Amino acid sequence: MTSLAISDAVALLSSATVGRVVFSVAALPAIAPITFAVHGDAVVMRTSAHTRLASAADGGVLAFEVDDVNPAARTGWSVVVTGVAEVVRDPVQQAVIHGLVAPYAPGENDVAVRLPLTVVTGRRVEGVLSPAPGDRTSPL
Amino acid sequence: MTSLAISDAVALLSSATVGRVVFSVAALPAIAPITFAVHGDAVVMRTSAHTRLASAADGGVLAFEVDDVNPAARTGWSVVVTGVAEVVRDPVQQAVIHGLVAPYAPGENDVAVRLPLTVVTGRRVEGVLSPAPGDRTSPL
Repeated sequence: MTSLAISDAVALLSSATVGRVVFSVAALPAIAPITFAVHGDAVVMRTSAHTRLASAADGGVLAFEVDDVNPAARTGWSVVVTGVAEVVRDPVQQAVIHGLVAPYAPGENDVAVRLPLTVVTGRRVEGVLSPAPGDRTSPL
Repeated sequence: MTSLAISDAVALLSSATVGRVVFSVAALPAIAPITFAVHGDAVVMRTSAHTRLASAADGGVLAFEVDDVNPAARTGWSVVVTGVAEVVRDPVQQAVIHGLVAPYAPGENDVAVRLPLTVVTGRRVEGVLSPAPGDRTSPL
């Protein structure tokens, strides 16, 4: 497993349209798939008012992940962004985000969320040869 | 978006081989793709000693997510398991888990982790018609 340069990680991030947003609800981890875009120096996404994400994104720490893993080939990559999110309230910026992101989930999705690329980490696995299931003695 | 019955959620979970495990590191959210299996009433996976996941899984709360989202069709599903994880130290159970799970990431992956299906939630989106990007007035 190799760490990616930030520029490579951001390029892979920008190549995807669906990721997973991670947040906390009552101190428990929560995660949901979501469509997104990279806009300037941030991940932008949309949600509906009164969702758990809308609450968590209003000044809370979010992680956002994209990946593409091929378990049979044992290759793949993942990129994670971590930062303090904000709900975008400027109408012009809201409209920009609404134009960039097609919601996956139904609902109004009027809440625009911006997660700055504060911490970006990326990893790639390729050409790894490791034992397959069954290579080890198993009672199954 | 509809909520899935637990039996349907577990069936979808069992159909996948790669998910994402969510944990906390120094009170910050962390997430990584990982191969897994459903074994009995738990998600089982493997990691290497001294990883952040190995620490977090030893009695900590984990979330585990699988999804399959088609943003163009606006269809898809996701399943999330939340519970208190444990590191499996019984050698027989360790061997079972090693036989079930082919690690995606390189390394020893000798640490077997069990996340019971304590809370399982699933959601499905299908046949949603919502505005595409550009349907709204955008300054872009």
